[in-house]
Amino acid sequence: MIILGLDPGLGTTGWGLIRAEGNRLSHLANGRLKTDSAAPLPRRLAHLDAMLGALIVDHAPDAAAVEEVFVNANPQSTLKLGQARGVALCAAARAGLEVGEYAARLVKKAVVGVGGAEKAQVHAMVARLLPGVTIDGADAADALAVAICHAHHIASRRAGLG
Amino acid sequence: MIILGLDPGLGTTGWGLIRAEGNRLSHLANGRLKTDSAAPLPRRLAHLDAMLGALIVDHAPDAAAVEEVFVNANPQSTLKLGQARGVALCAAARAGLEVGEYAARLVKKAVVGVGGAEKAQVHAMVARLLPGVTIDGADAADALAVAICHAHHIASRRAGLG
Repeated sequence: MIILGLDPGLGTTGWGLIRAEGNRLSHLANGRLKTDSAAPLPRRLAHLDAMLGALIVDHAPDAAAVEEVFVNANPQSTLKLGQARGVALCAAARAGLEVGEYAARLVKKAVVGVGGAEKAQVHAMVARLLPGVTIDGADAADALAVAICHAHHIASRRAGLG
Repeated sequence: MIILGLDPGLGTTGWGLIRAEGNRLSHLANGRLKTDSAAPLPRRLAHLDAMLGALIVDHAPDAAAVEEVFVNANPQSTLKLGQARGVALCAAARAGLEVGEYAARLVKKAVVGVGGAEKAQVHAMVARLLPGVTIDGADAADALAVAICHAHHIASRRAGLG
């Protein structure tokens, strides 16, 4: 099963693809999708949508996963993030993927073992859980983390624990 | 020129189509797109996207217009609205439409003549400016209002005033 993790943002969307076979995880690819901050908002969103569509066609994931949003104190940032996140969720659902949404605490727990882990710990554990991975920055690390969380979730659901 | 006005929302998205020939406006169609509140968020966004895509194919507008967002005091509402708005802007831009964004004050000024007009005044003026229209509720009225604003903007730009 191939899982696409996404960390959506208007300027940069991190993505990470992993393969899950039972409890065994392996890394497939990760990276960042960037939109031109000088372009009008609707164009940027359509560009993000097109890049996500291409990514999904290229890698044919079986499922997608995103972190639930930390609602920012700044409403303008929340709106911006919401717009990008809407496009990302829509692109995945339009491609027929089921999309899992996970709270940040759950992602940390799945990756590090504790819900209160620091970001740096999460990224270090992502690198350990996916041998040989080269991670393309913090957004891609977050995307791989939520993909790992989704894999655990499915494994424990199959084991009758989820 | 055919203009599609949109008032995006996750539960209900109002839409209105008008034809603008110079300063003459006429009504083409308006309505509401609804998503199932019991469905998962990504499904609802993909459904909204599909309905907007069908609307654009059916009516072949030349441009789209949306109101700039009033940022809600409730961050969860802002996030929800942002997600739906992102999908709407993306659907229009993906179809190759230029998308005009207008502040609420500008929309009121274009429709009623004053930026501080009440919502009820705006709706009454929309009905007067588009003879014969039957408006499918408040969201569709808002969508028609922003389409009218876009028509005025284009007319004044052509006249060298915008």
